Amino acid sequence: MYVIIVYDIGEKRVAKVCKFLRKYLNWVQNSVFEGNLTESQFEKVKYGLKKLICEEEDAVLYYVFSTPKWVERGILGKEKNPISDFL
Amino acid sequence: MYVIIVYDIGEKRVAKVCKFLRKYLNWVQNSVFEGNLTESQFEKVKYGLKKLICEEEDAVLYYVFSTPKWVERGILGKEKNPISDFL
Repeated sequence: MYVIIVYDIGEKRVAKVCKFLRKYLNWVQNSVFEGNLTESQFEKVKYGLKKLICEEEDAVLYYVFSTPKWVERGILGKEKNPISDFL
Repeated sequence: MYVIIVYDIGEKRVAKVCKFLRKYLNWVQNSVFEGNLTESQFEKVKYGLKKLICEEEDAVLYYVFSTPKWVERGILGKEKNPISDFL
C-alpha cells in the first residue's frame, strides 16, 4: 500500500514526529512524507503518531491507496527531495 | 478528478497562493488543499500557480486520481477543516 502523510504539528513536537516518520517513509517536503508500507507497518506508524502528537492541537492527514498506479503525481517548482518509490 | 495539493512556499508568496487556491479547492490544513476539479479547472490551477510561485525556491506537489473511491483518507488528531467532498 502506498501512503502519503501530511501533518500540521506544533513546533515543540514536530522534530520528534519527523524523526519517527523517517524510519518508515520518505521525507518529500516540509510536512509531507510518502512511501510503501505493509498493513502492519502502517498500523505501527499510526500507533506511534498517536503517542507523539497532541490530539487537541495537531493534525495528521493520511491518504492510502493500494497502488500508486491510480494516481498522477506531479511537482511545480523545486522538488525538495526526489523519490523513486512512486514510479 | 480528485486533486490534493500540498505546498511548501516562501512566506512572501504563500498568502497569494492560498487566496488563489481557495477559489478552486477546499483548504484542509496548513499547506494542504483538496477537492474535485474538471480537467480544464486543473489546468487553470497549474497555470495560475506557476505564475505565483518562485520556481527556484517553492515546491507544489499534487496528486490526482480519477475517483476518491480508490483512496482511504484518515485523520489523526484535530481535523482543522472537515470537508464532505471526499466521501
